[in-house]
Amino acid sequence: MKLLYPTTLKLDVPSLEGFAPTLHAYDAHAPIPEDLIDAEILVTWANSAANLSDAAKRMTNLKWIQSLAAGPNDVLAAGFPKGVLVTTGSGLHDRTVAEHALGLLLTAARRFDQMREFQLQRRWPQHLGGPQPDRPKDRFTTLRDARVTIWGYGNIAKTLAPHLAAWGATVRGVARSPGVRDGVQVYAEDSLAELLPQTDALVMILPGSEATKDALNAERLKLLPKHAWVVNVGRGTSIDEDALADALEQGRIGGAALDVFKTEPLPESSRLWTAPNLLVSPHAAGGRPQDAEALITYNLRRFLAGQELKNVV
Amino acid sequence: MKLLYPTTLKLDVPSLEGFAPTLHAYDAHAPIPEDLIDAEILVTWANSAANLSDAAKRMTNLKWIQSLAAGPNDVLAAGFPKGVLVTTGSGLHDRTVAEHALGLLLTAARRFDQMREFQLQRRWPQHLGGPQPDRPKDRFTTLRDARVTIWGYGNIAKTLAPHLAAWGATVRGVARSPGVRDGVQVYAEDSLAELLPQTDALVMILPGSEATKDALNAERLKLLPKHAWVVNVGRGTSIDEDALADALEQGRIGGAALDVFKTEPLPESSRLWTAPNLLVSPHAAGGRPQDAEALITYNLRRFLAGQELKNVV
Ligand SMILES: NC(=O)c1ccc[n+]([C@@H]2O[C@H](COP(=O)([O-])OP(=O)(O)OC[C@H]3O[C@@H](n4cnc5c(N)ncnc54)[C@H](OP(=O)(O)O)[C@@H]3O)[C@@H](O)[C@H]2O)c1
Ligand SMILES: NC(=O)c1ccc[n+]([C@@H]2O[C@H](COP(=O)([O-])OP(=O)(O)OC[C@H]3O[C@@H](n4cnc5c(N)ncnc54)[C@H](OP(=O)(O)O)[C@@H]3O)[C@@H](O)[C@H]2O)c1
Repeated sequence: MKLLYPTTLKLDVPSLEGFAPTLHAYDAHAPIPEDLIDAEILVTWANSAANLSDAAKRMTNLKWIQSLAAGPNDVLAAGFPKGVLVTTGSGLHDRTVAEHALGLLLTAARRFDQMREFQLQRRWPQHLGGPQPDRPKDRFTTLRDARVTIWGYGNIAKTLAPHLAAWGATVRGVARSPGVRDGVQVYAEDSLAELLPQTDALVMILPGSEATKDALNAERLKLLPKHAWVVNVGRGTSIDEDALADALEQGRIGGAALDVFKTEPLPESSRLWTAPNLLVSPHAAGGRPQDAEALITYNLRRFLAGQELKNVV
Repeated sequence: MKLLYPTTLKLDVPSLEGFAPTLHAYDAHAPIPEDLIDAEILVTWANSAANLSDAAKRMTNLKWIQSLAAGPNDVLAAGFPKGVLVTTGSGLHDRTVAEHALGLLLTAARRFDQMREFQLQRRWPQHLGGPQPDRPKDRFTTLRDARVTIWGYGNIAKTLAPHLAAWGATVRGVARSPGVRDGVQVYAEDSLAELLPQTDALVMILPGSEATKDALNAERLKLLPKHAWVVNVGRGTSIDEDALADALEQGRIGGAALDVFKTEPLPESSRLWTAPNLLVSPHAAGGRPQDAEALITYNLRRFLAGQELKNVV
């Protein structure tokens, strides 16, 4: 039995040893070599689309793909047969994506983006500094007492929430099933009509799927207060980008900080480049799986024992 | 006995009632009116220099000034007689300044400043996004495992440190007296030669005084690793700005995010505007005292009882 691991990231290979399968490095940007084509287990990270669609055709022995991406849309699009089990790297990006989301929230609150624009013109943005009102109701200027709604309350959200609470924010979640999770009240989507008008910052961490397509649409954008910011570190497909650009251009929301887009890189023609109060982050939140070895070995043990794996798609 | 409070901020005046002194609002940008000139207690916030120097001459009954600024350099420069007690607003800015400092650290780590520059040119900064190395040793890209040294380990630092630790940073402090404070190892300045070479991010929160002038000078800048960032939310006087600009221009440090400057607003002629990897924040970290009423009443009680006040300069 063979397990193939990619050379697109640094893995501590010795810590994967001691199981039945032999371990083999492979190049994720080239076709799988003939002598590895009979492998049953494939670990993927930042594979080329060509590598994956070729593997989908030629790896006829394949039983299980362990992606290290939280949202393995690349693997799902490659055409692997239905019988091949796919598990995601959800959990490996929690800390990096949560940290990025916090950075975007603070950039929005403190307007570091505007400061940069002023600096490039050698201008001192006096309106952002000096004595100022504390926690004005009509602006998002601090996490203290801010109402932050996290839509897509999974692993990343659970990592982010305590940090926001520690700064004094009131955090609420939205997911498929409601309930209290680690002390945070999580609502189903039918509560959005109530939640959005009470939101100073909306953080979207939804996966990309048919069900989440254009989740934040024109109608829901209208429910946000005029000062509310939208942060998206999930998938670009979950926002109707034209509706968002409209809302920004008409000053109907405070701003948006986006790490993900419908098309990446963002096409030169996109309205988003110049929409007012919009920050473009180049899908930079995650991109560096952490502690992947622990997930691989955990799932490998269960795979070999015929038990249910973690993070099954 | 009269207590004068400024109208430069919203105070919950009823919560100051019940003590001997009568309470009187005053305009901090005009001379103190004749009928209030005999006051013994003056609360100051964002007063004009003219107001303060006039008060220093005419308020001959004055016993105590409660500034709401953490660093009341304005009051100290106004020429009040030696006998007038001055207490600072240290503690009222902890959360806002700490939040700003965290925002600057994350902006530095995630390079939101560079993203903004690229966006203004409709360019996608690919080098900042997509798959990337996790915690490279030669760059400051995340707080996780980052070595953060906080120089000036007072109230603001104590508020900031647990947030940095929660993201996985190793925090060390520098102050006048060494010791362990709330679990953080604090060193005296004679340890800087050892600490600076082991620093990924140096956060300066020193007060402005003769003793802290040019604390970060050319010699000490040379001790920082090539990738290290400097964040200053204390006072601009504590950095030799020319030495910092040299270090940045020669690529000897990673970057600097400054909220305070020797001269504010930063003069148009300053080299700092265009020094590479330098962010100009317009003294925006604090500027909004929080819970000032609690400090005023605490000190007022002690003043009336003849006890030692909190935050005496
Ligand atoms: N920007 C980046 O660099 C980056 C990096 C990593 C991941 N991501 C993206 O972030 C996404 C989330 O990652 P994660 O690890 O937190 O995933 P996760 O643990 O699987 O959580 C997903 C959350 O979304 C909710 N959800 C799923 N479908 C939904 C729907 N149709 N309506 C409402 N809620 C729905 C789930 O609800 P239930 O809890 O009720 O099931 C769950 O709370 C990934 O799928 C990936 O696309 C982006
Ligand atoms: N950017 C802004 O908007 C903003 C807002 C508020 C405040 N500030 C600035 O931040 C400063 C710090 O505020 P804070 O409330 O944290 O003050 P603090 O509680 O008085 O703490 C000052 C710290 O600096 C240390 N220190 C003082 N002189 C020193 C010296 N010569 N060498 C080394 N360390 C020295 C002290 O050491 P010990 O603990 O050993 O005494 C103490 O740890 C204020 O003075 C103000 O200038 C800026």
